[in-house]
Amino acid sequence: MASEFKIVRGVEFSETDMAGIMHFSNFFRFMEGCEHAFIRSLGLTIFEKTSSPAIGWPRVAASCEYKRPLRFEDRVEVHLTVTKKTEKAITYAFTFRKSGETEISAVGSVTIVCCTFREGRMQATFIPKEFAEKIEEHHGVQN
Amino acid sequence: MASEFKIVRGVEFSETDMAGIMHFSNFFRFMEGCEHAFIRSLGLTIFEKTSSPAIGWPRVAASCEYKRPLRFEDRVEVHLTVTKKTEKAITYAFTFRKSGETEISAVGSVTIVCCTFREGRMQATFIPKEFAEKIEEHHGVQN
Amino acid sequence: MASEFKIVRGVEFSETDMAGIMHFSNFFRFMEGCEHAFIRSLGLTIFEKTSSPAIGWPRVAASCEYKRPLRFEDRVEVHLTVTKKTEKAITYAFTFRKSGETEISAVGSVTIVCCTFREGRMQATFIPKEFAEKIEEHHGVQN
Amino acid sequence: MASEFKIVRGVEFSETDMAGIMHFSNFFRFMEGCEHAFIRSLGLTIFEKTSSPAIGWPRVAASCEYKRPLRFEDRVEVHLTVTKKTEKAITYAFTFRKSGETEISAVGSVTIVCCTFREGRMQATFIPKEFAEKIEEHHGVQN
Repeated sequence: MASEFKIVRGVEFSETDMAGIMHFSNFFRFMEGCEHAFIRSLGLTIFEKTSSPAIGWPRVAASCEYKRPLRFEDRVEVHLTVTKKTEKAITYAFTFRKSGETEISAVGSVTIVCCTFREGRMQATFIPKEFAEKIEEHHGVQN
Repeated sequence: MASEFKIVRGVEFSETDMAGIMHFSNFFRFMEGCEHAFIRSLGLTIFEKTSSPAIGWPRVAASCEYKRPLRFEDRVEVHLTVTKKTEKAITYAFTFRKSGETEISAVGSVTIVCCTFREGRMQATFIPKEFAEKIEEHHGVQN
Repeated sequence: MASEFKIVRGVEFSETDMAGIMHFSNFFRFMEGCEHAFIRSLGLTIFEKTSSPAIGWPRVAASCEYKRPLRFEDRVEVHLTVTKKTEKAITYAFTFRKSGETEISAVGSVTIVCCTFREGRMQATFIPKEFAEKIEEHHGVQN
Repeated sequence: MASEFKIVRGVEFSETDMAGIMHFSNFFRFMEGCEHAFIRSLGLTIFEKTSSPAIGWPRVAASCEYKRPLRFEDRVEVHLTVTKKTEKAITYAFTFRKSGETEISAVGSVTIVCCTFREGRMQATFIPKEFAEKIEEHHGVQN
């Protein structure tokens, strides 16, 4: 069964807009921040300086549904689950809640693909074994 | 039949990330910029200082599929079509292309809801007649 | 003697640019985040919902000198000191270091002015007594 | 005598904050956008894919003084002048005005240094002759 990973962070002034709420594009930055913290929690990093060719994880799809606005200084829990894993791609689902509340502020999803970067060109490649195993082990998601 | 609206803009250095491409969250900012330019092209503005209570257009859903990366100094065409209009909500579809190219860089969608803002609380409301008529007239989209 | 306040935060992927380093504009967002955390550490908030007229703290000056770049996943300490306090304005100085290192990454300064916001117009006003006292008490800075 | 370069751009919704004005950090992004447009106006680009080692232009100093806020949909003129040029560094001054107005919204300054990037390390280097000549020719600034 998939276990869950979460981060807690505050909404900063620079993340709000003139409507007085967190700008909708920043939910995607929160999702990415949560994804990278998850990878770090596995003892890995999405940015491996020494791999050759360089490996990156561009997004192929991202979506978010907004239920309740987030505001300056709100403490926000972002929960991550791995909802799909193939040989080259991972799909994450995210849930946003104000810390300590049960009502959902937003739900989102991001699909990333493991790619090599050669001279500025990306090409999909197999997820490195170390990543694949740890992601499966931690989340119990099978190919 | 729905007509189309477009803007052209460049990718700025501050919109790139360390993978050398436009950060995926910025596609959503481009969509919003295109949406607001569309509204201005109708002689309107999404921010009407004098309306009381204040009217705003928060997003309830946003999504993007990324096909080909955009890079610094790329000239980008963002095309907007109104794909759905109800009494309180509008859904826009967006297509991203490098200027002069036929291949698609990304496609996206955003659904906004017309809301009143009273003391920091939002509530869905009917789209003002002036907006509703111009959006229908321009795009031929019926409720 | 002025005591010091600090925060520690990581550099996120979305804060980098195509040169592979944190974009220079984000140092200003880090300074503001540190400033607001400092104000919270005093039991206050820069955004008081119930004050009438609304009080805000726009910046009148901001500067940064960059010594060494910050990169993705660097842990960064931002140190704040109050370097000047007048009846209506506060100047903060900031120092950026990678966590655990002595070498400085950047130094910055921001001057804010306490303002009332009335119908979209700002006017400089006296810093509320509660703020003025706590800032002086904590930092030993005299008018 | 130094001639002047300018760009005009609008303030986007995503560039505002909950105080209803353009966030102060975005003035630095506008300055950088203006700088890059200036370099393009000389037939050059700050990002030369084929140079080896890669050349970049990190900032060593940036500052801004804020006089009057900018708001959503304001048309803004950003004026650039070269105020100093040495063998390895350029200092630009910027003036922000609402389009068609004489009153100044903000003034800023940025100093950049020409650097080589080798394996993630930057080192100051001589400004390429092509840049140096065109910048001097256009602006009449001598070393």
